[in-house]
Amino acid sequence: MGSTARKRILVLGGGFGGIATVRALHKALHGRTDIAIALVNQENYCVFQPMLAEVISGNISLLNTVTPIRDVCPGATLYVRTVERIDLDHKVVITSPGFRPGPSVLPYDYLVLALGTLDNFSVVRGLQEHGLHFKNLGDALVLRNRLIHLLEEADSEPDAALRRRMLTFVMAGGGFSGVEAIAEVNDFVRDVARRYPHVDPADLRVVLVHAGPRILPELPESLSRYAQTLLTRRKVEMRLQTRLAAVTADEAHLSDGSVLPTKTVVATIGATPNPVLLALPCQHERGRVVVNAALEVPEYPGVWALGDCAHIVDHTTGQPCPPTAQYAVREGQQVARNIVAALAGTAPRPFAFADWGMMGALGHRAAVGQVLGIRVSGWPAWVLWRAVYWSKLPGVTRKVRIALDWLCRLLLPRDYTQLNVAPSERLTRAHFEAGEVIVRQGDPGDLMYVMIDGEVDVVQQQAAGGERVVATLTQGAWFGEMALFTEEPRSATVRTRTSVTVLSVDRRTFQTLVTHLAPLREAFARLMQRREAADQARRQPHEQEQVGC
Amino acid sequence: MGSTARKRILVLGGGFGGIATVRALHKALHGRTDIAIALVNQENYCVFQPMLAEVISGNISLLNTVTPIRDVCPGATLYVRTVERIDLDHKVVITSPGFRPGPSVLPYDYLVLALGTLDNFSVVRGLQEHGLHFKNLGDALVLRNRLIHLLEEADSEPDAALRRRMLTFVMAGGGFSGVEAIAEVNDFVRDVARRYPHVDPADLRVVLVHAGPRILPELPESLSRYAQTLLTRRKVEMRLQTRLAAVTADEAHLSDGSVLPTKTVVATIGATPNPVLLALPCQHERGRVVVNAALEVPEYPGVWALGDCAHIVDHTTGQPCPPTAQYAVREGQQVARNIVAALAGTAPRPFAFADWGMMGALGHRAAVGQVLGIRVSGWPAWVLWRAVYWSKLPGVTRKVRIALDWLCRLLLPRDYTQLNVAPSERLTRAHFEAGEVIVRQGDPGDLMYVMIDGEVDVVQQQAAGGERVVATLTQGAWFGEMALFTEEPRSATVRTRTSVTVLSVDRRTFQTLVTHLAPLREAFARLMQRREAADQARRQPHEQEQVGC
Repeated sequence: MGSTARKRILVLGGGFGGIATVRALHKALHGRTDIAIALVNQENYCVFQPMLAEVISGNISLLNTVTPIRDVCPGATLYVRTVERIDLDHKVVITSPGFRPGPSVLPYDYLVLALGTLDNFSVVRGLQEHGLHFKNLGDALVLRNRLIHLLEEADSEPDAALRRRMLTFVMAGGGFSGVEAIAEVNDFVRDVARRYPHVDPADLRVVLVHAGPRILPELPESLSRYAQTLLTRRKVEMRLQTRLAAVTADEAHLSDGSVLPTKTVVATIGATPNPVLLALPCQHERGRVVVNAALEVPEYPGVWALGDCAHIVDHTTGQPCPPTAQYAVREGQQVARNIVAALAGTAPRPFAFADWGMMGALGHRAAVGQVLGIRVSGWPAWVLWRAVYWSKLPGVTRKVRIALDWLCRLLLPRDYTQLNVAPSERLTRAHFEAGEVIVRQGDPGDLMYVMIDGEVDVVQQQAAGGERVVATLTQGAWFGEMALFTEEPRSATVRTRTSVTVLSVDRRTFQTLVTHLAPLREAFARLMQRREAADQARRQPHEQEQVGC
Repeated sequence: MGSTARKRILVLGGGFGGIATVRALHKALHGRTDIAIALVNQENYCVFQPMLAEVISGNISLLNTVTPIRDVCPGATLYVRTVERIDLDHKVVITSPGFRPGPSVLPYDYLVLALGTLDNFSVVRGLQEHGLHFKNLGDALVLRNRLIHLLEEADSEPDAALRRRMLTFVMAGGGFSGVEAIAEVNDFVRDVARRYPHVDPADLRVVLVHAGPRILPELPESLSRYAQTLLTRRKVEMRLQTRLAAVTADEAHLSDGSVLPTKTVVATIGATPNPVLLALPCQHERGRVVVNAALEVPEYPGVWALGDCAHIVDHTTGQPCPPTAQYAVREGQQVARNIVAALAGTAPRPFAFADWGMMGALGHRAAVGQVLGIRVSGWPAWVLWRAVYWSKLPGVTRKVRIALDWLCRLLLPRDYTQLNVAPSERLTRAHFEAGEVIVRQGDPGDLMYVMIDGEVDVVQQQAAGGERVVATLTQGAWFGEMALFTEEPRSATVRTRTSVTVLSVDRRTFQTLVTHLAPLREAFARLMQRREAADQARRQPHEQEQVGC
């Protein structure tokens, strides 16, 4: 695959910036056999982010917001891998293994860092365990399926309070991404709910939680107000100057002390730098790699950085460049020109760009934006939004497919097929706030739990009425396993004393583990013996370590 | 929901038969407020099976072969649940739990059993662990993603033998379903491979393994021959009168003793009755519920069975009815009429039907079939195939969407986006045949293993050359965990002596288990101590129970 005398240009990351770099390089260096261009990305496709929200509601078919990278980057070798480490001194990038064990090592002569950011859900308690992401195609699919699943369950749920909990959807983050997503969620659930005869539309609740005083803070205030008024009229509840404080499987806790009963919390908050880039021995600014005016890393000539993962100062204005797709594309094109200059031995040029504005879709035939200094809103903005982004779609194929999707959406009813891919055996983390019930006495059991942190009380109802705390459990204790063995109802209630994280293990996984891992099997055998002895001694308190419920 | 005085008709299973029953019932009983119709199905959609194969190759968009059940069955209540038990004496059906713990209980007055069959992969060693199903929408998606994933990996794999193994695709079962699927797999990989610059089309190998002397045994011999010749010309290898003997992650073993190096084995063999139906106290014939001429279960009046899960004898011919969609639909309509008769107190009518024939698609613009006694093949058959099945699609929406898909496919290049949904922590079973290497000394380690059955040798390379068996492990032993702890390469090779099944645990799951399950943590601490002691005593044989490699 190419002689080693070739100059190797390696681009890390297939977002807007990385793709723009590869395309511009290919255009400039087309036919040069002394150059090899390669791209590393976790997926074999690139996502057209502005239209991702429309996947939730099914305006656009699942696969039409994405394009195979091989189609848009014909001149480059693609590695579908995760970047694990970058060694700037030895000029190699280490990626995750494929089918064969062990990492792959990719050497380079020129390196482009375009890895973007990662979601950081550790900023809110329980968000890692129960929050939904909204960044990739997989996230949009998971969210769409969750909405349909909850509508299906709500339709056959007799308990009105539980039904309302299932029908409440919370979005944290009122930037472009969060607003576009919640607008589509709102349109979708309100439209599709009509097919569910036992779902009362009045029970649907869609809530947007935003830390700032107004949503879409990047836009002028009048447009933010317009968006807020429009979404409120469409029954989206606004919780401004409010933060998400904690998330459990059943509740969203807000910074103002209020609690929303919900099974669905989506978050577009908390971007964090890619740890691979943080580990590099170069200067960082708030986690971003600092580059010079030519977008090159000063300490390592031949290494460039751009997009969300780079700290770029516009040399004409002295202002940092915003982390938007428009900027990333222009930065990528400039990096490509500068690499071509470096190959030719000429001087690199500095980066400068003024954007044309920004727009956000608000669902059902409405948008807001500022384009070339002019404010637009309502359906003219929506038409403009579609025209602008449609024209920017990569390739004719996507343009035709998306146009057909939009046409179908005008003519045909919405689709609400729930696409489940068979789950494998699972270990799941779950988070609970203080005072929540993890298992309830008398319920049938389908999960056992291992405590990761916090404290819980094990409580038994007394025949005479009232309840008795029979044990308090802490980190490392397990509970709930008896119900998996015997199929009897839970013998006690477990209630949290503090904020608690547990590992929950389903029946099938539990049986696999106990059957095949001897130390666990023996521990359970011992436990069963102790349990029987305790039963014979009648109503002695349970052991602290393991309590059967 | 609805007064208990209503007559409750409960249909189990949303395949062709179940849906036809509900639709015919709704049509006949429309407006009758004294009747409640309900349907239980695992998904909220029904699959249009004849077009499922086209999802593999992307001729049809992912969601367009399926239709939301609520759209095709407007008059019925849908429960998206798995049927766990049927109590014919108390007239209730017990289903899986939803969001709240514990099963749901659905009472009925009339019951229709239309649960079809399940795949039985236990008929071939290793098939459960490594075989892919081809029955549901999820299966088609998984298969499509596997094909794309293997092409991506092969494109960056320097080892030619491994590349050929990745590019070999095996289908077991030459009935309609298997032939249609392998034809689409063949079209897809041969077309898309052109986008992969390092994949040599000559390395692609697509193999159909079939136990009988000719494929499509339901058709006349001349049509089978036609299909075989056409597929062979399109480079599908035929292995007739051959069975799949065993499957591992790297090989397919055939009954003639040959071994195909492959990472992809799909099987459409081994249907088995639903265990819920086997448990019923009524007569069975080869696992199917025996019904009378009116399709009623003789022991339990008011209970009907139809489709694949019923043993139905055509009273005019005395022959058993075949398990095809055409028959299931007609049986469903007859059951609906007979339930209406039972409600009215009139006598049920016997079932009789002569089908119009059968057809199978062979990929790229070819099909074979026998329609009203006339044999058709080639592209006229393909046009007829599309016309017939398109006309049978439920509803206008699907008809328009599928027509657009077919139009796009004519005009636009194929899509080959790989859709990954984020995997959770995992425990996976794996199967190996005798003489295979599970881990190899010197490789980096990313999995540990627990032995479920069989025997393995732990072998170390000697500095002087040659190798030494340091231990033989059997059921319950673990190996490979050291590499997960220390990130050092495997210290020994583990090779199977017999056919072996293991549970493999990935690094993340392993760390979760060891961190949070005290008995496991302690067992590892003891193990590490023993290891250190053994190291000090230098080169003593490893313990039988756990060997670090």
